[in-house]
Amino acid sequence: MTQIDDRSLNEATVAGGGLLSRRKLLGGAALGSAAMSLGVVDAVRADPALPEWVTSAGIPALEYGHPAPQEADVKRVLFQIYQDLAPEFSFSGTPLQKLRGTITPNGLHFSVHHGGWPEDLDPRQHVLMIHRLVDRPLKFDLESLDRYPMISRVHFLECAGNGFFNAVAPEPQNLGLDMLQGLVSNAEWTGIPLSILMDEAGAQPEGRWVVAVGNDAPSLSRSIPMEKVMKDGMLALYQNGERVRPEQGYPMRILLPGYEGNMNIKWVTSLWVTSEPAHTRDESGAYTDFLADGRVLQFSYTMGVKSLITHPSGTMTMNGPGLYEISGLAWSGSGRIARVELSADGGESWADAELQPPVQSMALTRFSLPWRWDRAPTQLRSRATDEAGHVQPNRAAWKARYHPSNINHYNAVQAWDVSAEGEVVNACA
Amino acid sequence: MTQIDDRSLNEATVAGGGLLSRRKLLGGAALGSAAMSLGVVDAVRADPALPEWVTSAGIPALEYGHPAPQEADVKRVLFQIYQDLAPEFSFSGTPLQKLRGTITPNGLHFSVHHGGWPEDLDPRQHVLMIHRLVDRPLKFDLESLDRYPMISRVHFLECAGNGFFNAVAPEPQNLGLDMLQGLVSNAEWTGIPLSILMDEAGAQPEGRWVVAVGNDAPSLSRSIPMEKVMKDGMLALYQNGERVRPEQGYPMRILLPGYEGNMNIKWVTSLWVTSEPAHTRDESGAYTDFLADGRVLQFSYTMGVKSLITHPSGTMTMNGPGLYEISGLAWSGSGRIARVELSADGGESWADAELQPPVQSMALTRFSLPWRWDRAPTQLRSRATDEAGHVQPNRAAWKARYHPSNINHYNAVQAWDVSAEGEVVNACA
Repeated sequence: MTQIDDRSLNEATVAGGGLLSRRKLLGGAALGSAAMSLGVVDAVRADPALPEWVTSAGIPALEYGHPAPQEADVKRVLFQIYQDLAPEFSFSGTPLQKLRGTITPNGLHFSVHHGGWPEDLDPRQHVLMIHRLVDRPLKFDLESLDRYPMISRVHFLECAGNGFFNAVAPEPQNLGLDMLQGLVSNAEWTGIPLSILMDEAGAQPEGRWVVAVGNDAPSLSRSIPMEKVMKDGMLALYQNGERVRPEQGYPMRILLPGYEGNMNIKWVTSLWVTSEPAHTRDESGAYTDFLADGRVLQFSYTMGVKSLITHPSGTMTMNGPGLYEISGLAWSGSGRIARVELSADGGESWADAELQPPVQSMALTRFSLPWRWDRAPTQLRSRATDEAGHVQPNRAAWKARYHPSNINHYNAVQAWDVSAEGEVVNACA
Repeated sequence: MTQIDDRSLNEATVAGGGLLSRRKLLGGAALGSAAMSLGVVDAVRADPALPEWVTSAGIPALEYGHPAPQEADVKRVLFQIYQDLAPEFSFSGTPLQKLRGTITPNGLHFSVHHGGWPEDLDPRQHVLMIHRLVDRPLKFDLESLDRYPMISRVHFLECAGNGFFNAVAPEPQNLGLDMLQGLVSNAEWTGIPLSILMDEAGAQPEGRWVVAVGNDAPSLSRSIPMEKVMKDGMLALYQNGERVRPEQGYPMRILLPGYEGNMNIKWVTSLWVTSEPAHTRDESGAYTDFLADGRVLQFSYTMGVKSLITHPSGTMTMNGPGLYEISGLAWSGSGRIARVELSADGGESWADAELQPPVQSMALTRFSLPWRWDRAPTQLRSRATDEAGHVQPNRAAWKARYHPSNINHYNAVQAWDVSAEGEVVNACA
């Protein structure tokens, strides 16, 4: 272990607890090489025994590749809330703590299925219908949709209930990010602006709502304001380049940037243009918010501004003292992330993290800052601000707004306790 | 089939052969709904027999998802050039004609393997060494690298030989884009700037080259100018969020934005800092360019400006006359795409396509423009210009520069003939 030069580290300090300037560190001037010598300096020698994979030919190319078998533990966490009642009501959480960058690979995109996913859906039979308050009721099959103008956008999707353990558990649960906050993912979605299809159908002026209906067993249905549909709603046909995956709504889903996950109807087959919302089961039941004063908030679409430190995070163990990079993800349903602040001393002092460009609207944004950990017990926190000026609340402020049983729209600051032994544990905030 | 309103279409015309203004079309003012009525208008009726997937519960969530089984034909094309000599020398081409957007899903990223890919590589044994002309020879394992500052960048990778059928075949081959041009893909790569690792090792002033060596059977090795390493070279550890796939160099590869694919050494295990290039087999043999005057061009790193119309493209058949969207991909090893021109009359007239933001440097960029096809035989072409001012050459200009046998760095305009029957066939240019 090479000794770190404390004098130059102090020059780069930007907040308490060891937070350092990324610009100064990457510039190389302030810290030099010693700060990056992470105990791996070693004499290089030719290895007398070459490993087998260098001495024999490998595997020819595959038609569809797969992750390294050595990474088999990088998978979604599965959990069921109504296991006995409805095993098909299943969740899979993205292992955010094992990923880097901002794109979620399609195999690891989170999913919430109220009635499982329809494996045997026939794409040649599947149609999208637009009807009710329209001049020209229309029916589209996959082949006809292929001729329409398409756009591509990188957007996050987040389940309204993401973070529910932190929202309702009496004590912070010592879990990893996949369980705690894994119901959020990010992909490049490609499809047709809904405004084009609505224009073609001739939506009538009194058609202020669009009820989207899924083609799965529960026919999950939500009412969407026509204003949102026309502004940036998309009929998504492709996910990270290839056809939308079956768990994300193959062959087509609604995409409503920034809106809670369940409104982005999967396997969508019908768009009813109506003058009033339908008050479907899914919008009058599961996806309402219980407020502190006993009232229930309906139609709370937009996901709040939020951030998570992914590295380090819960259930990880620090690999000795020295330099690390704190890295995480931030997003907001209201637009771009404007700022992420980090604290390495439990909220006493804060420093601005660097944001990884391009910072895209309603998309996961990676933030980072170098950090020197000296084995002192401490607490890490991140706090995001979006371009609309919304600031991520702390847990007390969030809890004050909602009824103790409310699980939806939890966006409070996520804190991680770091012990002297380097154990990283969920502390809520 | 609803009749298209020719009068309003004419107002939106931007070039011959039926090219239309995307802005006017999407604005809805010029064309209105008739232009988008693609023969799919139909009365909506309740279907008396609901399909099985709506009447029974589906499949619970999976740990690692997969594409829809219904899309089994969306796969990489496999081909071998030295089948008898070396079956492990294998290629897999991305099916560009079946994808949309810009990101290539990891399972479909093209690959070229000189000796197959090492399936049994042990990531705990794998190390990266930096040595020779450095002050401090260093060795890094995966765990130590995890602590370094990381960056994420979306970049294309393209094999130097991509397009070789068009380069050398005496007649245009009637093939799909996967075979013709599929050795190019695009991903969000996350890793450590090589400049940080070089600074830590203390590369010496006379170290003007870095020889990167792969840990596979052929030990593929290339000499990289130190200037490029320090400017934007990356040690890539993640690909679209998850660990680099085994066919792309798991657990780590070199990424040199804009440089020909083989220089982005996979399974990289050694970086020798040297004063001269090593003149390895791979840079003195396979990856040199044969010029028209009989000389051989070595160290031609940067991939040229290039574009491909992916929709429609070779082996497809048009689905009747009417409106389509011409859509394709453009890229350049020299920076951002500045402009893509389209011709629907064999090069007589051209119109600017719209570029899908964000247009990123040395990344695939999606372009598109609406097009009315009236059953007349015609030829489609695309021609890209990058921010450095390079313009994609036509085939004759490209051929005039190189020896007839040269297969590398083929970036000439790709043309597609469209017959009266709607068959789309490779025409080179």
